Amino acid sequence: MTAERPTVLQPEMPPTRWGDPSHATGLPDGVRDLVGLVFPIRDTPARAEVAVPASRLGEAQLAGLRALVGEANVVLDDATRRLRTRGKSTPDLLRQRAGDLGDAPDVVVRPGGHDEVVAVLAYAEQQRIAVVPFGGGTAVTGGLVADATGLAGVLSLDLGRMRGLLALDPVSSTATLEPGLRGPEAEALLAEHGLMLGHFPQSFEYATIGGFAATRSSGQSSAGYGRFDAMVVGLRVATPAGEVRLGSAPANASGPDLRELFLGSEGAFGVITEVTVRVRPLPEVKHYEGWHWPSFAAGSDAMRVLAQADLLPTVLRLSDEAETAINLADPATVGAIGDDAGQTSGGCLMIAGYEGTPSAVAAKRAAVTEVLTGLGGTALGEEPGLSWAQGRFAAPYLRDSLLDVGVLVETLETATFWSNRERLYTQVKAALEASLGEGTMVLCHVSHVYATGCSLYFTVVARGGDDALERWLPAKAAACEAIVATGAAITHHHAVGTDHKPYLTAEIGEVGVEVLRAVKQAVDPVGILNPGVLIP
Amino acid sequence: MTAERPTVLQPEMPPTRWGDPSHATGLPDGVRDLVGLVFPIRDTPARAEVAVPASRLGEAQLAGLRALVGEANVVLDDATRRLRTRGKSTPDLLRQRAGDLGDAPDVVVRPGGHDEVVAVLAYAEQQRIAVVPFGGGTAVTGGLVADATGLAGVLSLDLGRMRGLLALDPVSSTATLEPGLRGPEAEALLAEHGLMLGHFPQSFEYATIGGFAATRSSGQSSAGYGRFDAMVVGLRVATPAGEVRLGSAPANASGPDLRELFLGSEGAFGVITEVTVRVRPLPEVKHYEGWHWPSFAAGSDAMRVLAQADLLPTVLRLSDEAETAINLADPATVGAIGDDAGQTSGGCLMIAGYEGTPSAVAAKRAAVTEVLTGLGGTALGEEPGLSWAQGRFAAPYLRDSLLDVGVLVETLETATFWSNRERLYTQVKAALEASLGEGTMVLCHVSHVYATGCSLYFTVVARGGDDALERWLPAKAAACEAIVATGAAITHHHAVGTDHKPYLTAEIGEVGVEVLRAVKQAVDPVGILNPGVLIP
Repeated sequence: MTAERPTVLQPEMPPTRWGDPSHATGLPDGVRDLVGLVFPIRDTPARAEVAVPASRLGEAQLAGLRALVGEANVVLDDATRRLRTRGKSTPDLLRQRAGDLGDAPDVVVRPGGHDEVVAVLAYAEQQRIAVVPFGGGTAVTGGLVADATGLAGVLSLDLGRMRGLLALDPVSSTATLEPGLRGPEAEALLAEHGLMLGHFPQSFEYATIGGFAATRSSGQSSAGYGRFDAMVVGLRVATPAGEVRLGSAPANASGPDLRELFLGSEGAFGVITEVTVRVRPLPEVKHYEGWHWPSFAAGSDAMRVLAQADLLPTVLRLSDEAETAINLADPATVGAIGDDAGQTSGGCLMIAGYEGTPSAVAAKRAAVTEVLTGLGGTALGEEPGLSWAQGRFAAPYLRDSLLDVGVLVETLETATFWSNRERLYTQVKAALEASLGEGTMVLCHVSHVYATGCSLYFTVVARGGDDALERWLPAKAAACEAIVATGAAITHHHAVGTDHKPYLTAEIGEVGVEVLRAVKQAVDPVGILNPGVLIP
Repeated sequence: MTAERPTVLQPEMPPTRWGDPSHATGLPDGVRDLVGLVFPIRDTPARAEVAVPASRLGEAQLAGLRALVGEANVVLDDATRRLRTRGKSTPDLLRQRAGDLGDAPDVVVRPGGHDEVVAVLAYAEQQRIAVVPFGGGTAVTGGLVADATGLAGVLSLDLGRMRGLLALDPVSSTATLEPGLRGPEAEALLAEHGLMLGHFPQSFEYATIGGFAATRSSGQSSAGYGRFDAMVVGLRVATPAGEVRLGSAPANASGPDLRELFLGSEGAFGVITEVTVRVRPLPEVKHYEGWHWPSFAAGSDAMRVLAQADLLPTVLRLSDEAETAINLADPATVGAIGDDAGQTSGGCLMIAGYEGTPSAVAAKRAAVTEVLTGLGGTALGEEPGLSWAQGRFAAPYLRDSLLDVGVLVETLETATFWSNRERLYTQVKAALEASLGEGTMVLCHVSHVYATGCSLYFTVVARGGDDALERWLPAKAAACEAIVATGAAITHHHAVGTDHKPYLTAEIGEVGVEVLRAVKQAVDPVGILNPGVLIP
């Protein structure tokens, strides 16, 4: 087939905020009142824009790049470079807001396809220029911050021109997508054929196919449709050592599964130029509903029972008592979260969502309902489910609004086996509260479940202000230390980047790190690919 | 917990045959008559046993090994070394039957646990002795044939003393198993706790946990319980460079998934000393049944529809027309298979098996039955299912009996995406028939299914005799070339070994092979681990 391209492109995000400014709603009065009970609310004035440092690349180098991808696709202007400076973690936003553009790339290059990526990599290797693949710019763990020590500069390899649906195999139910397609663009192309991917992380509206693969993203429908890495059946990767094409079959015994080595490689092993994924028919029916549980432990146990019975809805998430209270916007409860009264006050909200054919949805829902009812859950009907679905991509906008009034908000996540869930939950929460001090709200939900374990997703709300970054970084470190101490994963779906790199050795061991270094040396001997990211 | 060990151990197999000699039934008269219609039947006399070549290791080296694992666990006798010479492919058996013991290991060493494995690896590295991990000895692709060029000799690292259930986590539904446990031993240990693994490859009775992991084995219940690699959540591996412990969570985004690099590494990257797997409750109900399809294509399409609807039974397999005819033992059809009349005569047999709780089995069976009936399948009731279940581990015994009367039997397998299934099937079949000549029977079944594709498992029956090996090897090469030419996987669950090594580069590319070499160099710089296996 001829590559199909999206007719509507997602706009670029502003450098200091999330999303489309026209979609930002400001801070709702209810939230302002609620959070104001705990923290001082103080509108912080916007700062004047700071100029981006001059590019370190020489005219000859820029000319060399222009010869490869065309003049229009070698971009140096401040706005373009500013947006490609770091990602969208709260520290990233705070640094941007403070005018810190020290990590700005020296040039933004926009290749038009695999062959141009290959050419740019060869040139960058020859010129010793660091290459940072850039998709949606939604990274939250420092994966876009390359260390150019010993190199001539940093090239942001913007994959935004590579937004094609390259191939569709309706018999095998697979689609081959280019890396620069953002979530809604990929879904729109597939929907033209009655198909979908079904990957809906919170970053869905801006993150890209290449980023999903490079970071092992996981979406809100992972219970039904799986993690992104589990959807991938084939990859094409451009490396300085040559091209890698993987995916002879859904699964095989042809040695180690090298797909799993490039998935999660965060640009350090190559640039993913094509991703072949499993697709599915668009669901005929969607039904989202709420369930109430007396405690986080009771709700978690119910999720575990469902997962171990291979009886999972499409969407399954469970908020702890504190997150439930905030969601229900009960000021009395919120005021008490800081001293843990929230733990016991209002129970926990679970969202269960079903998608598919009417008969499959009805059958699954009946079976799940029987299990949940038997375990002590109380059905709350569709309203909480619809409310969740409506707001599912809105949290980053709310974070911006809270940052605007001097309140610090950030998230972090981890995963573990079921028997370690309670310990991990307690210790991460305690570490964050101890580090950030009185009044800090630590909210949590189980975001993804497996037969043998689950992920925990924490949202932290704390006093902001001018020293917010200085207070957040040790809190994040404390949380990471707590995660590592319990033997859990330093990240379930946010990736390693530079932020989690100090903890990777604890997780995969010295030999594991040596293996990563050996692979890196084999595919990128000069070390131009996202240097400083991922590998300790 | 204290490690639990099996009370009943599977016996060792004889070197020239499969399984327990007391279970061998000889060649049934019906099969003798059937096959005799096509091939000359001629009982071949057993040869006198040939002495195993003298060990190339010196007394000092043997003493060094004895100091590490104890005198009783450094074994040099002919019988022990003969059984550890190669595996159980038909070429392996033919070579053993012909008295070719050129690949015999120089010593068999039996470590008692992880620490002894580490000690043996260190000593072997220092002495430059090749180490071949040995589990059940059921390898069928030459994975036990190390190339000791430049090394002092070959040490068969027999893991048979490492047969413990080391840990059980009933909350997370995981069990940690030692690599030397054979299938029935592992299941017996788990059954004491009401649990099971659910991995039943044809080699189940003799193959081991370590072998399942090292070769990415896939069992007959893979539709319901998954491939072995998909059951693994944690690994402990001893490498010359140090220990690797992996598995912080069911899934994570902590960079590349290194579990997937050691799974399928066939002893070339390390010795797997512990495997943590997902376990399940023992099924309360088992229901196996047969379905008739007018053609292999129609039955395959039905499997695809089920897989893409995420509606798979626990067991799902489909024989092609020729295999169906042989299974139904219709001499008239069998006589015609050589000239392809079997293609159209009797349709195809599908086995669908359901295991689980009564309600889950009933629900799944009802849903699957509706789909299969709607697609033109005819339910045949339980008899064909029970017949399959009864004989599910018997085929290797029948192969022995056929080899005994001068008939060549061998199997090979591959996997591909659904849209390539027909082409792969036709071309592999044609390649085998063209190479082996008139009368050759090529039988096939779809053995494992996925949403995006399936595996094809071929059984070849051809004229045997003294030149059987010389005629089989080019036929196997022709089949491999056909597989590679269609872009399919050179193996779905038999692994690469030495037999498939020449075709691996075509599948994973030059850079993929370089990556494997780099990992090998990092974990095994001297190159003692199964040298010559897996990596081209």
